[in-house]
Amino acid sequence: MPKTVRVTIWNEGRHEKSHPEVAKVYPKGIHGALAAGLSKQPGLTVVKTATLDEDEEHGLSEKVLAKTDVLTWWGHMAHHEVADAIVERVHKHVLEGMGLIVLHSGHYSKIFRKLMGTGCGLKWREAAEQERLWVVRPGHPIVEGLGEYLELPHTEMYGEFFDIPQPDELILISWFEGGDVFRSGCCWNRGGGKVFYFRPGHETFPIYYDKNVLRLLGNACRWAARPAGSSYSLACPNVAVPLNPIPKKK
Amino acid sequence: MPKTVRVTIWNEGRHEKSHPEVAKVYPKGIHGALAAGLSKQPGLTVVKTATLDEDEEHGLSEKVLAKTDVLTWWGHMAHHEVADAIVERVHKHVLEGMGLIVLHSGHYSKIFRKLMGTGCGLKWREAAEQERLWVVRPGHPIVEGLGEYLELPHTEMYGEFFDIPQPDELILISWFEGGDVFRSGCCWNRGGGKVFYFRPGHETFPIYYDKNVLRLLGNACRWAARPAGSSYSLACPNVAVPLNPIPKKK
Amino acid sequence: MPKTVRVTIWNEGRHEKSHPEVAKVYPKGIHGALAAGLSKQPGLTVVKTATLDEDEEHGLSEKVLAKTDVLTWWGHMAHHEVADAIVERVHKHVLEGMGLIVLHSGHYSKIFRKLMGTGCGLKWREAAEQERLWVVRPGHPIVEGLGEYLELPHTEMYGEFFDIPQPDELILISWFEGGDVFRSGCCWNRGGGKVFYFRPGHETFPIYYDKNVLRLLGNACRWAARPAGSSYSLACPNVAVPLNPIPKKK
Amino acid sequence: MPKTVRVTIWNEGRHEKSHPEVAKVYPKGIHGALAAGLSKQPGLTVVKTATLDEDEEHGLSEKVLAKTDVLTWWGHMAHHEVADAIVERVHKHVLEGMGLIVLHSGHYSKIFRKLMGTGCGLKWREAAEQERLWVVRPGHPIVEGLGEYLELPHTEMYGEFFDIPQPDELILISWFEGGDVFRSGCCWNRGGGKVFYFRPGHETFPIYYDKNVLRLLGNACRWAARPAGSSYSLACPNVAVPLNPIPKKK
Repeated sequence: MPKTVRVTIWNEGRHEKSHPEVAKVYPKGIHGALAAGLSKQPGLTVVKTATLDEDEEHGLSEKVLAKTDVLTWWGHMAHHEVADAIVERVHKHVLEGMGLIVLHSGHYSKIFRKLMGTGCGLKWREAAEQERLWVVRPGHPIVEGLGEYLELPHTEMYGEFFDIPQPDELILISWFEGGDVFRSGCCWNRGGGKVFYFRPGHETFPIYYDKNVLRLLGNACRWAARPAGSSYSLACPNVAVPLNPIPKKK
Repeated sequence: MPKTVRVTIWNEGRHEKSHPEVAKVYPKGIHGALAAGLSKQPGLTVVKTATLDEDEEHGLSEKVLAKTDVLTWWGHMAHHEVADAIVERVHKHVLEGMGLIVLHSGHYSKIFRKLMGTGCGLKWREAAEQERLWVVRPGHPIVEGLGEYLELPHTEMYGEFFDIPQPDELILISWFEGGDVFRSGCCWNRGGGKVFYFRPGHETFPIYYDKNVLRLLGNACRWAARPAGSSYSLACPNVAVPLNPIPKKK
Repeated sequence: MPKTVRVTIWNEGRHEKSHPEVAKVYPKGIHGALAAGLSKQPGLTVVKTATLDEDEEHGLSEKVLAKTDVLTWWGHMAHHEVADAIVERVHKHVLEGMGLIVLHSGHYSKIFRKLMGTGCGLKWREAAEQERLWVVRPGHPIVEGLGEYLELPHTEMYGEFFDIPQPDELILISWFEGGDVFRSGCCWNRGGGKVFYFRPGHETFPIYYDKNVLRLLGNACRWAARPAGSSYSLACPNVAVPLNPIPKKK
Repeated sequence: MPKTVRVTIWNEGRHEKSHPEVAKVYPKGIHGALAAGLSKQPGLTVVKTATLDEDEEHGLSEKVLAKTDVLTWWGHMAHHEVADAIVERVHKHVLEGMGLIVLHSGHYSKIFRKLMGTGCGLKWREAAEQERLWVVRPGHPIVEGLGEYLELPHTEMYGEFFDIPQPDELILISWFEGGDVFRSGCCWNRGGGKVFYFRPGHETFPIYYDKNVLRLLGNACRWAARPAGSSYSLACPNVAVPLNPIPKKK
């Protein structure tokens, strides 16, 4: 793990401008709340926030990603406006070792669907219902310092079937008042990089101010940061000279 | 499992036209050899072979895929010529339950990379070396009736690191004379469908006439065929009415 | 898969004798209800029921197991009375390819704990609450013909954390009225054999008469039956003669 | 991760006494070599070595294990002499979060078989052949700072089929001169603890002096050490009072 994990926080940043009720909950944007909250977590430094509309690269230049150990991703209403070239760039960085934390409605983002290879659909309901996230992998670094479950009084519901590849590690399962369950904390390895999906985070609820959520996301950022010196490479090389001699056939 | 598994065999079909040494090994194309060999396996019927150049849809119309339980895929020199619309179509059918068997150099096909979400690179060497594929999952239907290993006298080598997501099931690991190993038989679940990657099959070697290879591929086709009546759906529906009443908060 | 899967149904069979309210629900024992229900499922034949007290081998002689493709296991109050030698015998048969379906309170049986290697603890509550089992692996043979979920009006609750190794395949997640979730349908591979754990089945509720539960258990029995001709062996052989010559070192 | 990982090194310690050729390679025992080598790895402190014959508890008292973050285990000729009570004790500590690194012939130890639930057999050959361990999970902390493979000039061979549950993470695959392959670096989660199996380490070869092996084992010890504050418990509690009220049925 790098000594200090450098986190870049990406947010679509549209709801906050167009919906006063969202601006009220997140006056500095979801990215602003996450930046403030994650900055206080141990072992992390938030190097930058970035948003869809800040420039043609959505704030995710090569230079920015080169200095990013872990990228967090929140998007919802404008997934289709993220340029394919930027998706390719983020994808390449993930495979080469950058951690990626995909949040809530990011399940339908181009980058998450590209990394998963599945449809990434789910069921949803906006009824401000209670959610309880049960830990099904005690001892995992992502739930360090948390108890048997997290509880959120009001959330948008996401329900199964969640169309993802079987997680390499399943950490959290959500219970919802209305009768649904959801795999809410899921880990995958992709190339040399790590991906974590975390379910909660609807734009009208103050989820990203919650102490436990921030602790968990801080844990996730440290978990997703890769050690230096990986042998991963995107190449497909011809290794014409074998390491061991190939016997002549009679 | 459907009573008789309907298999469609897709092949790029270019090497056979442009390289006489390939045409000599596969005078009816790789698809022709696979069609002949798989037709003799129990429980299968080869409904069609299809190739890149046969029409604008590469022989993979909606009508064809609708009648396909399992699709096999061989490609190499023209991956980039496969139309994106056809890749999307095949992807959708896999998620909805069609089995997909990806062969050898198909590791770099658009459809395999899309389903995996990784780079899918590997090492390779053309030295006609011996390969031994060890079974690491005895009892799995894909290796039914085969022994502890399969052996091929001359193959192109593929070596690790193979840039794939961790397989849901790892069935075969290859040993090569020149000092390399490879995860040669890998299973994944994607949506409602199953994907199997099988390594051997270079165009200049008569791999797809090998009795054990054909038995294994026949097993794989039966394994990849999905039962009817799956609840999978690509939708992302709003389920506004909860199954259980949501208590009013005080 | 064998043509007809030969199922042996094992039941502790004590509650039915000592508790009138259980005898009322299961007058022929839990084994009797399962035998009647599974006999009607396609592709199965119930060759025998067996109980703890029927003889010194609990009805599980070598002869019985040798003719068993899949064994189902229900136990609760007398796990510790199952002879270690019989546990060893069942374990050996599972590794050699016999399927095992562990039911409900069987989570704490000797055989399940031996196969898992973990504590197998969980939370529980008897409050006759509603359970909804969500399918998280559509297309899997175990949920063939079932919809998006199963529902049971009154069940004993089992809650997370369920102390099991990460399932090779997670099929079902339960939602309970009282606020808990549970991994209720889990698959593991052990040696040449397959293990499936299915949560519902408290002795005071008529769970094993439920049409959907029986369909699912029938599916599970067919899924757990292994193909013939597996290369699995319990031995640890010295293979002194290498398959390839080992070059002399200079 | 604890600041400094406290490692206890357990060794059977018999070969070194009875076989002069082993004593020549490991004059201070395999435990002595490992203690010296691991002491130099960053972030570790070797708190103790322990051996089968040192006392009735094989050096593994409750007091010792209570101060152990990670235990390494080497055994071979006397697996059956390890007291069952000590195996139970180590098992309990693993479930409660102690890391366990099982080395080479430890594959047949009571503790490893208990944690796996399978037979743990394999093939073997003593022919001083070359081994190359390929990294199939670049970026994993266990292979931090190592390249694409490790190479050992002379090793005892272990070949597939290795009778283990599918690893949660497969890190290394070995190639052997004589034609075999082996899953040589495997991770599992058990309860709140982590288990790593590492193949090399025959008593007549100086494997545990190898710079890369020691680096890898040091990485593995840091990886296996669990964060504090886990919610794991071995109990199976009745939670009679639900977190959410259970509605009365009409």
